[in-house]
Amino acid sequence: MYSITVRDHIMIAHSFHGEVFGPAQRLHGATFVVDATFRRVELDADNIVVDIGLASGQLAEVLGELNYRNLDEEPAFAGVNTSTEALARVIADRLADRVHSGALGEGARGLAGLTVTLHESHIAWASYERTL
Amino acid sequence: MYSITVRDHIMIAHSFHGEVFGPAQRLHGATFVVDATFRRVELDADNIVVDIGLASGQLAEVLGELNYRNLDEEPAFAGVNTSTEALARVIADRLADRVHSGALGEGARGLAGLTVTLHESHIAWASYERTL
Amino acid sequence: MYSITVRDHIMIAHSFHGEVFGPAQRLHGATFVVDATFRRVELDADNIVVDIGLASGQLAEVLGELNYRNLDEEPAFAGVNTSTEALARVIADRLADRVHSGALGEGARGLAGLTVTLHESHIAWASYERTL
Amino acid sequence: MYSITVRDHIMIAHSFHGEVFGPAQRLHGATFVVDATFRRVELDADNIVVDIGLASGQLAEVLGELNYRNLDEEPAFAGVNTSTEALARVIADRLADRVHSGALGEGARGLAGLTVTLHESHIAWASYERTL
Amino acid sequence: MYSITVRDHIMIAHSFHGEVFGPAQRLHGATFVVDATFRRVELDADNIVVDIGLASGQLAEVLGELNYRNLDEEPAFAGVNTSTEALARVIADRLADRVHSGALGEGARGLAGLTVTLHESHIAWASYERTL
Amino acid sequence: MYSITVRDHIMIAHSFHGEVFGPAQRLHGATFVVDATFRRVELDADNIVVDIGLASGQLAEVLGELNYRNLDEEPAFAGVNTSTEALARVIADRLADRVHSGALGEGARGLAGLTVTLHESHIAWASYERTL
Repeated sequence: MYSITVRDHIMIAHSFHGEVFGPAQRLHGATFVVDATFRRVELDADNIVVDIGLASGQLAEVLGELNYRNLDEEPAFAGVNTSTEALARVIADRLADRVHSGALGEGARGLAGLTVTLHESHIAWASYERTL
Repeated sequence: MYSITVRDHIMIAHSFHGEVFGPAQRLHGATFVVDATFRRVELDADNIVVDIGLASGQLAEVLGELNYRNLDEEPAFAGVNTSTEALARVIADRLADRVHSGALGEGARGLAGLTVTLHESHIAWASYERTL
Repeated sequence: MYSITVRDHIMIAHSFHGEVFGPAQRLHGATFVVDATFRRVELDADNIVVDIGLASGQLAEVLGELNYRNLDEEPAFAGVNTSTEALARVIADRLADRVHSGALGEGARGLAGLTVTLHESHIAWASYERTL
Repeated sequence: MYSITVRDHIMIAHSFHGEVFGPAQRLHGATFVVDATFRRVELDADNIVVDIGLASGQLAEVLGELNYRNLDEEPAFAGVNTSTEALARVIADRLADRVHSGALGEGARGLAGLTVTLHESHIAWASYERTL
Repeated sequence: MYSITVRDHIMIAHSFHGEVFGPAQRLHGATFVVDATFRRVELDADNIVVDIGLASGQLAEVLGELNYRNLDEEPAFAGVNTSTEALARVIADRLADRVHSGALGEGARGLAGLTVTLHESHIAWASYERTL
Repeated sequence: MYSITVRDHIMIAHSFHGEVFGPAQRLHGATFVVDATFRRVELDADNIVVDIGLASGQLAEVLGELNYRNLDEEPAFAGVNTSTEALARVIADRLADRVHSGALGEGARGLAGLTVTLHESHIAWASYERTL
């Protein structure tokens, strides 16, 4: 199995609902350093997993929908705790939609799976892994 | 599959038995930067894998039993080579016990698995992965 | 010249005033990984720059006044752009006050200077350096 | 499942064939920071996955065949795009050959699998994973 | 003294002249992860060292003149060893020209100095520091 | 001013004397990731600060005198707290001796200064800086 990973980041505000979150129930924020990993069983005709330029570009577009925003005010997240692990899934699913629509190139339809990891600090990170 | 990872560290002394270890047969030491990864198939009612505060706290307690010690003198390791990979399992198994006892919260009983990685330097690390 | 550095972090929300900031004029947030560096010309009687436990503890207290907050609502920052470099100074000056008050130990009065670095992402960071 | 990873690096020149590569069709180069991960189900008689000295030494030998070279002129890569993911496989397969030949020790024959990751920058990396 | 740093990278081919360079006399290559640090004594009217968007953009333009190239064929480097430390100066001087021309904004004329660091691997890097 | 830095590491056991050290008074250990930075005002005839191969080799030799040892039993450290900052000086001074003896090459006699940084974990490090 092969994979390639590209890294980018977002800077957002949000708050959490539930006693388990303690002081993180207050409005605060985070830089999420985002790693998107694309997997496939065999390389394509160019000897690559996916065009790294397209992968970086599509990741930047998906992140652009979240970046520099207060997630508490985004309709997509109404009533939802935007935990690091939940956001990892949102980003992975949006990337998967773009793979299926052909935005990562025709060859990308041969991808087997996708993992998105969000680093919220030097001591904590979260991932969501799915098939394609 | 979702995961969250928390990072902490220990500073210990130890020595190894066996010619394969060369100069590491002498009493020496290591800083192990420890990453504990918790996995589950679906998020809990709070939209998280596990409470990150409880996870960090329980990891700190497990590491507190090893930190600032000479492992050669710990009864738990009598006659055992405390290699990086062997210590990864010790820490993973002790965390698993705490998950099963409820110390990471009732929701943590829904965890699927656990991986512990110990970084012994910038050029070497080891992991142990298990189910829960 | 000797130095020691300790690392911690905060997660805050804020927004900026001024066209130069573009989309960062919207309410967003950041994780700041904070490095506090303490310098002195000669080591103290214990052969150290400063007690690393006290240094870490005082840094944590200074950061605790900022952590999990919306800086736009903090009276201390009214009318001020809380840029990464400006926050580096705030933290450095608050640590300096604690050095001068004896909170880092009597020996810490021999410190020559202090630098605080805030990493806002994997591709940007800022520092403020001062004497003591 | 246990694993250990060792890190080393190479500095090579190469170019790519195919419009998808854009400016990377020109002769350029890369530092690849290379992580080789060895996996096994149970530890050996010394309580390790594999002798870390042998693992590092064999990785260095495999990398020595590529280091400080223009890959466009290497017969082994004639007509082949030496993408990061393709090179990950080359290195993994050459390490696997050495495991099978006994160069990592007799105990290494009990290894279950191998992953090689090449970091081409702070924002992109690729892996190849195989069984042994 | 305040500073901000932005990070980017280039991937180039080159070779060295001189026995001291050993195998690096062959055509090879490198990824240089490039950190550009801008320093000033007091913050500007926006409470910043320099507009981070302009700083990143100008660094990207300077690096664009070097990226994906064989430096041995660049007229600017004829007869010159393009060592990591020498390239750090080239990039610093080109950034300084842009500061002086106003490309980093009028406020950037108040900058006191500049440091450029090039990381050639996880175990080696080089810097050049200058005034402005 | 130019600089180059090379990285290596040691794994040692030791203990501290003095109440300020708390549990670190027990025999424990550390991995120190060691960065040695060499500075000079102008580059030498080869357009470098110092031969990176010689610098790495001499750093490895200096570290070899400390590696895989219990520093409490080393005559050189009798009655001395081998704090991270104190060890940074020991290593810097031993490297300076080698520079002066010509072990880093004749050109290295033109070096202006030296800094040694020891990282004891992901959240703490110490440096010693001196002239040559």
